[in-house]
Amino acid sequence: MSASGNETSQQLADACAKGDRRAASRLITRLESTDRAEALEASRAASTLPLPKQTIGLTGPPGAGKSTLLDYLVGLQRALGKKVGVVAVDPSSPFTGGALLGDRIRMATHRSDSGVFIRSMGSRGASGGLAAAASDTLRVLGGAGFECVFIETVGAGQTETEVVSLADSVCVVQVPGLGDDIQLMKMGILEIADVFLVNKADRPGALELKEQIELALHESPGETCRARRMLGAAVARAHRVPMWTPPVLLVSGLDRKGGDEIVKALADHLAYLAAPELSALLRRNRTAREIAWRATRRFGEELGHALQPGGAHAALADACAEGTLKLPDAIDRILEGRP
Amino acid sequence: MSASGNETSQQLADACAKGDRRAASRLITRLESTDRAEALEASRAASTLPLPKQTIGLTGPPGAGKSTLLDYLVGLQRALGKKVGVVAVDPSSPFTGGALLGDRIRMATHRSDSGVFIRSMGSRGASGGLAAAASDTLRVLGGAGFECVFIETVGAGQTETEVVSLADSVCVVQVPGLGDDIQLMKMGILEIADVFLVNKADRPGALELKEQIELALHESPGETCRARRMLGAAVARAHRVPMWTPPVLLVSGLDRKGGDEIVKALADHLAYLAAPELSALLRRNRTAREIAWRATRRFGEELGHALQPGGAHAALADACAEGTLKLPDAIDRILEGRP
Repeated sequence: MSASGNETSQQLADACAKGDRRAASRLITRLESTDRAEALEASRAASTLPLPKQTIGLTGPPGAGKSTLLDYLVGLQRALGKKVGVVAVDPSSPFTGGALLGDRIRMATHRSDSGVFIRSMGSRGASGGLAAAASDTLRVLGGAGFECVFIETVGAGQTETEVVSLADSVCVVQVPGLGDDIQLMKMGILEIADVFLVNKADRPGALELKEQIELALHESPGETCRARRMLGAAVARAHRVPMWTPPVLLVSGLDRKGGDEIVKALADHLAYLAAPELSALLRRNRTAREIAWRATRRFGEELGHALQPGGAHAALADACAEGTLKLPDAIDRILEGRP
Repeated sequence: MSASGNETSQQLADACAKGDRRAASRLITRLESTDRAEALEASRAASTLPLPKQTIGLTGPPGAGKSTLLDYLVGLQRALGKKVGVVAVDPSSPFTGGALLGDRIRMATHRSDSGVFIRSMGSRGASGGLAAAASDTLRVLGGAGFECVFIETVGAGQTETEVVSLADSVCVVQVPGLGDDIQLMKMGILEIADVFLVNKADRPGALELKEQIELALHESPGETCRARRMLGAAVARAHRVPMWTPPVLLVSGLDRKGGDEIVKALADHLAYLAAPELSALLRRNRTAREIAWRATRRFGEELGHALQPGGAHAALADACAEGTLKLPDAIDRILEGRP
């Protein structure tokens, strides 16, 4: 079946699940619709689709060569025979859709490969939560049979951290000579990486950077195993979740070097995650976060409507604006369900 | 009274309201606490404080010279005898607090002036909504007697647009020679400006840029009056909200030129907003948005807890993770209040 006309979003999702790539494209476009009802229906349909078998996060500072490296990584996974998806997320860009992010032309190598699906997401069309929106897109790609999906983010804000937290394995790209390596580590980069990729490894300082990262991991007083950190200290201890120490690999996206090591590290990490108990704990943890994001997004949208003149909570906004009700009291009433 | 030891946040807010600057500082620090209960209590206390008399948004692309211009604008308001606050927001930075944003040293001129209060906000410490967090900070500054507060944002994503929507008047900074002027206009910059500042006006192309913006405003098919757009077409028509056409001023932050025109334009815009009916409509509109942001942030935090093992909604997350319940159904149950 091919997507054609006025299908419901659920019909598009069903077509996705049969491997219809065009249906996947159209469902993602609906997810980004400015028509909120349409976007909500699409999100609901997307949320019934399965996640990809493997989701790999890729993050790091601007200038680290993430795009070139991603191009290389996609090729490596294609060589293993996998269908590969790419979701590129830039919260600072208002643009969404298609295969262009900002002004970069990316992934030229794979543009014509039908086994590769590339999609960019900016902040527009992701009202109320980029992580929830990215999760929708991941599920559409997973549903359409893309086994390995990369999720790339720019920057290191909270939104980006939340977005990469969707991934099974997170690669943090670092590069010698940016001069703020230590600063980046302070920013919590140690806590979100499963694999460090020191890119442009032919540059002076690459080996020193690798050693710095390894030392920082070794000396860090905090929890540097992402899985254990996500589950929380108490759960990790109670279930004796084993430790993963992120390997630090010297690679070059441009010279296509280090690929075997990257593939091995990612496979090792996936095997680490697949241990039955850890796998169940992480699935539950991720599910809880996804429910929270999605429910919060819908709550915010519905509350926005309810506070408009004529809406169910309009009187609360009126009273606060007139000064007869205090903001915290209005919020208490809303959250306690009192009109 | 001076803030000293173990005051409650409400006591700090009360001290703020008496003009205690140190209490203001300490309350803002609590707003950014990683201890969620402490941050929530601080937010609650901050929300009882009044907004500043005048909040001016300043936004525009990187490289437009916003920092230098802001330094100039602060001086102009100080010369009018006002106490001035600055809230600099960078959603892509994980850093929060103090007076440094990213690697820029800003506002050196005013650092030692006790009539100026400068605060930076990154995404960290603003869990679940930078706009709600910025609103808290605005209220602390307003409460502490800072009459004119600037709120500066970098970038043009949805978060930034939401943050500048807190301002009474929004200045959009443009600069000749960035080469993407038209693109910026497409990005919705026409819709969020009350005043355009063409900075670095001595550069070639400044006059042309001014004329381009004026033409684009004139020809825009959309609503370019921000107040009318925020209220929505129906309300604007029903209440015959008068039109504001954003002036486009040639200025130079570095050479300190155009100041009289900026001061006049901002005063004119404030007078426009002060018309009783419009003022009431906008206050209600802003109050409704603030309630929605704050309630949504609290909803998200509380739901996150409720979904953790042992929480009130834990069974829903378990069932979804085990595949016996679909995500949309779990979300329906949460939003309908069924456990």
